[in-house]
Amino acid sequence: MTEPVVSVGVDLLAQAVADQAAPVTRVDWRPPMPGTEDDLATVALDPVRPEADARALERMLGVQALLVDVLPAHEAVGLERGEFMHAGPPISWDRASGPLRGALMGGAVLEGLVDTPEEAEALFEGGLHVRLEPCHHRRAVGPMAGVVSPGMWMFVLEDPATGARTHCTLNEGLGKVLRYGAYSPAVIERLRWMGDVLGPLLQRAVRSADPVDVTAILGQMLQMGDEAHNRNRAGTLMLLRDLGPALVASGADARDVAEALGFVGGNDHFFLNLAMPACKLALDAARGIDGSTMVVAMSRNGTDFGIQVAGTGDEWFTGPAQVADGLYLGDFGPDDANPDIGDSAITETAGLGGFAMATAPAIVRFVGGSVPDALATTRRMREITLGENPRWSVPVLEFAGVPTGIDVSKVCRTGILPQINTGMAGKVAGVGQVGAGLVTPPEEIFPKALARLAELTRGRAAARTPA
Amino acid sequence: MTEPVVSVGVDLLAQAVADQAAPVTRVDWRPPMPGTEDDLATVALDPVRPEADARALERMLGVQALLVDVLPAHEAVGLERGEFMHAGPPISWDRASGPLRGALMGGAVLEGLVDTPEEAEALFEGGLHVRLEPCHHRRAVGPMAGVVSPGMWMFVLEDPATGARTHCTLNEGLGKVLRYGAYSPAVIERLRWMGDVLGPLLQRAVRSADPVDVTAILGQMLQMGDEAHNRNRAGTLMLLRDLGPALVASGADARDVAEALGFVGGNDHFFLNLAMPACKLALDAARGIDGSTMVVAMSRNGTDFGIQVAGTGDEWFTGPAQVADGLYLGDFGPDDANPDIGDSAITETAGLGGFAMATAPAIVRFVGGSVPDALATTRRMREITLGENPRWSVPVLEFAGVPTGIDVSKVCRTGILPQINTGMAGKVAGVGQVGAGLVTPPEEIFPKALARLAELTRGRAAARTPA
Repeated sequence: MTEPVVSVGVDLLAQAVADQAAPVTRVDWRPPMPGTEDDLATVALDPVRPEADARALERMLGVQALLVDVLPAHEAVGLERGEFMHAGPPISWDRASGPLRGALMGGAVLEGLVDTPEEAEALFEGGLHVRLEPCHHRRAVGPMAGVVSPGMWMFVLEDPATGARTHCTLNEGLGKVLRYGAYSPAVIERLRWMGDVLGPLLQRAVRSADPVDVTAILGQMLQMGDEAHNRNRAGTLMLLRDLGPALVASGADARDVAEALGFVGGNDHFFLNLAMPACKLALDAARGIDGSTMVVAMSRNGTDFGIQVAGTGDEWFTGPAQVADGLYLGDFGPDDANPDIGDSAITETAGLGGFAMATAPAIVRFVGGSVPDALATTRRMREITLGENPRWSVPVLEFAGVPTGIDVSKVCRTGILPQINTGMAGKVAGVGQVGAGLVTPPEEIFPKALARLAELTRGRAAARTPA
Repeated sequence: MTEPVVSVGVDLLAQAVADQAAPVTRVDWRPPMPGTEDDLATVALDPVRPEADARALERMLGVQALLVDVLPAHEAVGLERGEFMHAGPPISWDRASGPLRGALMGGAVLEGLVDTPEEAEALFEGGLHVRLEPCHHRRAVGPMAGVVSPGMWMFVLEDPATGARTHCTLNEGLGKVLRYGAYSPAVIERLRWMGDVLGPLLQRAVRSADPVDVTAILGQMLQMGDEAHNRNRAGTLMLLRDLGPALVASGADARDVAEALGFVGGNDHFFLNLAMPACKLALDAARGIDGSTMVVAMSRNGTDFGIQVAGTGDEWFTGPAQVADGLYLGDFGPDDANPDIGDSAITETAGLGGFAMATAPAIVRFVGGSVPDALATTRRMREITLGENPRWSVPVLEFAGVPTGIDVSKVCRTGILPQINTGMAGKVAGVGQVGAGLVTPPEEIFPKALARLAELTRGRAAARTPA
C-alpha cells in the first residue's frame, strides 16, 4: 500500500497542534515497556507475522455489516432461561462490580426469575440456577454492564460475503438504565416496553426495508462529528431516516410507531448498539490468524480489562480495569465512579471512538480534554496501529482513514496505550451513569499478550528446525 | 465584548494552515479598495456608527427562529394569481438569465396560467398578466432562481419575542428541479405532489408538534459537519427527528406519511429552506439602523448580485453576478454554468455557509478547494465581520463562534470579499443543476454601498452643524 498524499497534511496539522504547546506527547521514539525487549525481538523476527498482520487487517477491512434482523436473545444467540451474558472477559458474581451486579439483578427481575432485585442477589450468590457468560463468547457485544437476558431483543448484523453474524441489545437511553447498573421499576418498565413494542416494531421495519448498511453509516458519521462511541447522534438520525418509512408502512398502530420514533430520536446513543456489533463483525473476521499481533477485542467487565489477539485464539489477557478521567453528571465525583466497564471498547479496537476523536472535537464537551488533544489523539493512535481504514475517513485530517488494527508489538515497543472514550457507571449497584471520560487499558496486559505471541513464535520456529 | 480565550487556539491553528504552504492570503494589512479612502475616513469618524453596528449585531444575534406553520404562498405572503417572487434584487424578464426564466416558465405551468413552458415565454415577454418581485421584498428568501408562485407551500418562521416572520418554499431535492431552472413534466409533477400532499402533511405536523427551533438546530448542525448552505444533511435529519412522531400521529394516510419521510430523508438539502429564512429573520431585525455599516442581505438573481445594508434602508447596491469556481456534475463544464444565482447567500450574510466552512471540511468534496482552505476561510472572514455568534460555534476552532455581521467598511478597507459556497445552475433554461462551487460578490458593490453610507454620514454631520 502506498502512503497516501494526504499524510503530509496530517503530519503538519499534528505539528501545528504541538506548536500550540498543548500537552502532546512526542512519539518519535520512546523506550519499550520494561521487560518486553526479548519478546519484541522474537516477534519482530517471526517470518509469519508480516503476512499474518496484513491478512488480519485486510479481512477486517473487508467486512460489510448489514442490519438484517431484530430478534429476542433466546432466538438470536440461543440464550436460555437462567442464562445471562455480560460485558468483558469471564467473571463470577463474587468478583463482579456494583454496576454489573445491578444489571444482573434487574435482568433477573425482567425475566421473572425473582420478584425483586434484592431476591436476585441471593439467586446469583447461590449460583445454582443462573449462568454468566461473556457476550463475546456468543458473537455479541454489550455496552457498559452488557447484561443480556433471554427475553431482551437484539440487533442482528450480517456480513453478506460470509454470512457471519454479530448481535447487540437495543439501547435504553442515558441516565438510570440497566446497562449502567440501575434496576428501579422505571428501568424494568422501559425494558418491558422495548421487548413488547419496540423490538417487534423494529423487526417488522428491518425485515421490510432494504438492509441498513451500518458500515456505510459509520463512514458518514465520521463526516458528521460522531466518533461512534460517545457520540452517535448523526448515526441515530440516519437510522431513523432509513427505517422511518418502513416503520410507518408496517401497518403497526400509529401511536406505537410515533412512540418508537420519539424514543429513538430522543436517544442520541441509540446507534451505539449498532456501531458496536458492526465493529465486532469486522474484528471477528480477523480471529485465529497464527502469527498476527493484531488486537481483535478490548473489553471490560467492571473489574477486569481484557484483550484478545488474532494470533492467540480465544485467550483473554487481563488486568485491573481503571477509573476513567472525565466529566461527572450533577453532584457525582471520582469517588462515585466504578472502574471501566463494557464491550464498547470494541469501537476503539476497530479504529473508532478514541481513535477517531479528531473527527469529533465536540466530544471533549462530554468526555473532557481539549480540542487539540482530540486531534493529537488520533495521530498518536497511528503509532500503534497496522494501517488506516479508507472507508472511515476524517475530513479535518484531509480525509485520512482512521488508525486501525492495534498491534500488540507496537504498543509494547512505544508504551503508547490505546485511548478509549467511555461512559462511567456508578460503583454502587442501582445508581446508573455518573459521568463520561477518557481511559486506557492497564499497561500490563500488552506484555502478557506479547509473551504469549513470542511463545507461539518460538514454538513455530522449533517446529521448523530439523530434529 | 472581551476577546474570548479560545481565539489563541484559533489563531495558532490558522497559522498552522499557513505553515502548510496552502494558498492562504495574509491578512495583517492590505491596501483598501481603490477610491474608497475618503469614504472610509468619513464613515470611520461617524460618531453614530459604533453604537449602530453594536445594535445591529445584537439585534441579529437576539433572534430565535421557530418553525410555526406551513402555508401556501398566497396565504403566507399574499401572492396573487400572476404574481411571482424570485431571488436577488429586482429584475425584469428581458434581463433575466436562463435558470430564472426556466423557473418562471415552470411556475406559470404549475399555476395553470399556460399549458406549456413555451407558451410561458410569450406570457412573460408580454408582461401584461404577470408581475415579478424579489422574495426579499415580501419577507421571504428563495434558493437559486427562488421562484415562488401563489400555490407553492412555504415554511413560516417566527421570532417569538417580536412576532416577526419570514418564509421560504419547500426544497425539491437536487438535479432537475425548478429552482435550478428545470421545468420538465417530472419537475412539475413533483411540485404538484409537494403542493397536494407534502405541504398539507407538514402543516398538520408543524401545527401539532412543539415549534421546531431552527436557530438551535443550526447550532447543532455546526457540530455535525454542516455549514448550512451546501451541507444541510444533519439539519435535515434533525427536522425528520423533530417532526416524525407528529407526522405519524397526524392521522394522515400511512402511505403518504411514509412517502413524505422518504422524500425528506432522501434530500440532504431539505433543511436549506429552513436555514435561509432563519438567517433572514435574524438579519431583518438589523434593518433600518441609521449609521450601521452591517450587510443585512446578499442576494443574486442570476444577472445581478445585490447587497442591502442596515444603515441604507431597502436600497440595493448591485453589480454583475460572477460564475462560481467549483466542481461540475457529469459532463458539464464552466461553459455550461450560469452566473451566481439565489437568495441563499443570506446564510453567509448571517455567518454560515462559506463563513462556517471550517466546521464542514467535507464540503470541499462538493464545492472544491482543500481542507486547509476551509479552515483559513473562516478565519479570513473574521477580518470583515463585526463579531462572533456564540450560539453557532465551530468545535475544531475550539468552539469559536462563526464570524458574523459583514461590515461594508471592513470589506472596503481590507479588500477581502465575503466567501460564498453555492450551487451552480445551467445557463440554459430547463437544464437544471450543473455543479457547485465557491464564489464572491462583485467587488464594486461594496464601494457603492460605502459611498452611500458616507453620503448619509455627511448629511447627519451637516444636520448637527449649527447654521
